[in-house]
Amino acid sequence: MRIRIFAYHFLAMFHKSVHAQIFQDYTNAVEFPSSPANLYDPIRYILSLSGKRIRPLLVNMGVELFDASHVPASLPASAAIEYFHNFSLIHDDIMDKAPLRRGMETVHQKWNDSVAILSGDALLVKAYEELVKCPTDKLAPLLRLFNRTALEVCEGQQYDMDFEERNTVTQDEYINMIRLKTSVLLGCALQMGAIIGNAEESAQELLYEFGVNLGIAFQLQDDLLDVYGDPKTFGKQVGGDIISNKKTLLFIKLRELLTADDEAEFVQLQASNLENEPDKVAKMKALYAKYDIQALAIYQKEKFTAIAYEKLRAIRVEESRKDALFSLADALMNREQ
Amino acid sequence: MRIRIFAYHFLAMFHKSVHAQIFQDYTNAVEFPSSPANLYDPIRYILSLSGKRIRPLLVNMGVELFDASHVPASLPASAAIEYFHNFSLIHDDIMDKAPLRRGMETVHQKWNDSVAILSGDALLVKAYEELVKCPTDKLAPLLRLFNRTALEVCEGQQYDMDFEERNTVTQDEYINMIRLKTSVLLGCALQMGAIIGNAEESAQELLYEFGVNLGIAFQLQDDLLDVYGDPKTFGKQVGGDIISNKKTLLFIKLRELLTADDEAEFVQLQASNLENEPDKVAKMKALYAKYDIQALAIYQKEKFTAIAYEKLRAIRVEESRKDALFSLADALMNREQ
Repeated sequence: MRIRIFAYHFLAMFHKSVHAQIFQDYTNAVEFPSSPANLYDPIRYILSLSGKRIRPLLVNMGVELFDASHVPASLPASAAIEYFHNFSLIHDDIMDKAPLRRGMETVHQKWNDSVAILSGDALLVKAYEELVKCPTDKLAPLLRLFNRTALEVCEGQQYDMDFEERNTVTQDEYINMIRLKTSVLLGCALQMGAIIGNAEESAQELLYEFGVNLGIAFQLQDDLLDVYGDPKTFGKQVGGDIISNKKTLLFIKLRELLTADDEAEFVQLQASNLENEPDKVAKMKALYAKYDIQALAIYQKEKFTAIAYEKLRAIRVEESRKDALFSLADALMNREQ
Repeated sequence: MRIRIFAYHFLAMFHKSVHAQIFQDYTNAVEFPSSPANLYDPIRYILSLSGKRIRPLLVNMGVELFDASHVPASLPASAAIEYFHNFSLIHDDIMDKAPLRRGMETVHQKWNDSVAILSGDALLVKAYEELVKCPTDKLAPLLRLFNRTALEVCEGQQYDMDFEERNTVTQDEYINMIRLKTSVLLGCALQMGAIIGNAEESAQELLYEFGVNLGIAFQLQDDLLDVYGDPKTFGKQVGGDIISNKKTLLFIKLRELLTADDEAEFVQLQASNLENEPDKVAKMKALYAKYDIQALAIYQKEKFTAIAYEKLRAIRVEESRKDALFSLADALMNREQ
């Protein structure tokens, strides 16, 4: 459930920006020892896989919303968030037995599970090493937020694994899971920026909620694109979630609404694969259509998008300062349409 | 390489002490959520396996050496160190494929590897959650020390795994590995106490060095007891390291000194097990005796013990305040003789 095809043009623009370069220069200067190689090489490797650095961007935007002069002081927080994200990728990939990440071998695949466990641990500690470099008077609130978020991300990953073993998952459970697993870290990145930018607590919390709700909407959009995306621009196989029986919001909604008449077909499709049922994707899409699942999912996505916008609007700073965040949100929620 | 049979009587005494009870009460009051059960049950489980709580004791002694009035403020630091230690046990046990810990099933054995990875991660974050509860003016130095130590412990574990794959390991490499893997955390515990007890930096560092050197001496003592301990009091199979070809200091020294004449026997013993060579332990001990390996190891152990005592003596506080630490060191280094 990674953030994919993330408003490509918007971020491509950002990646040529001054702040992206400053962040890159900052992290390039952070040194990892050469020995033991099996501990630090995997860290250098995962950090070199050129992720989109969306979380450091959010820290940056969080600072700039309130006081851009604190951007330099926020670089360690940006690095901490990015390290934490990469730590969670290394460990999640072991648990998910994923062979590839960003088109390259995962750490446990390239080395082995033990190396991936331990280098992930070390990268998590490196995140905290960065946090300590933040302004001392902000250290305690930054740490409290970061710790709470880190625990929530662990909880989200555990729920995600638990749900794979369960037959039924409710919509609320699913949304709570994606909130924990992916969205709170986006909110955390923004709020860390706000803390460093000296925002009032109420404003910090609004910005946090903006990030969390936008993250949920984004994930729901991802579920939708997986089924209804344009194969030309989606960048990966459309219908992948259907093929792997992934419990997305669409799946959960269908299961909830399914009448006894269609139950048999649903169960048969779940048990099938592309070899014995080449039309699996088309047939599931027909079921989705019959129950208007797409509209239900769009409704949810728009609900969380609306909450996100409302939170951002409620922050009391000069309106023009919010442009960048509104643009980002627009780019995210209107991609590929 | 855990700390075992740790000066049993001394610690038994401590465990009935007021401070032990206070620490127990403190950690009992720290709440772990009930859900997701697969994330938090393993944490409750490992913490319930009643380790010896030696590290919290060291934090406590570190405070008391300078100013006992700060003991209550040090409880979160004690908890952080104990949580970190248990996090490292959970992850090390996965890597070592260990089925048992403290006589009970390990976490990955009782649940599975994914649960053990993720609950270990969460416990590491919980350690940092405790650290933030320490006095705010001490937070940055405590965190810096803790982070550095945590990375070193990861490095030690990686070297330990690397050494298993290597043919030769030097004495210096071995001692550096045990320093990183087990000793720095003891020094860290003491220094965290010293920081909270408002010790000067030079005194903090002496106390840290006392802990690290005592830890190394203790581990070398452990290597010795494994071969020369009294089976009645050692508490586990004497000769276990020999049977498993573990690269202890004794092993490394023998390999270094071995003449061509004895090389063949040594290689044959390494390739053997108790079934095809019931006298493996006795024959290795004969080789150790021929090269005076026991004396060489005792020399090293005493060297590090002497350094530890010297560091403690150099700390400028009222001498009687050091009694508890000298008693602890004596108990550790004279056990089972």
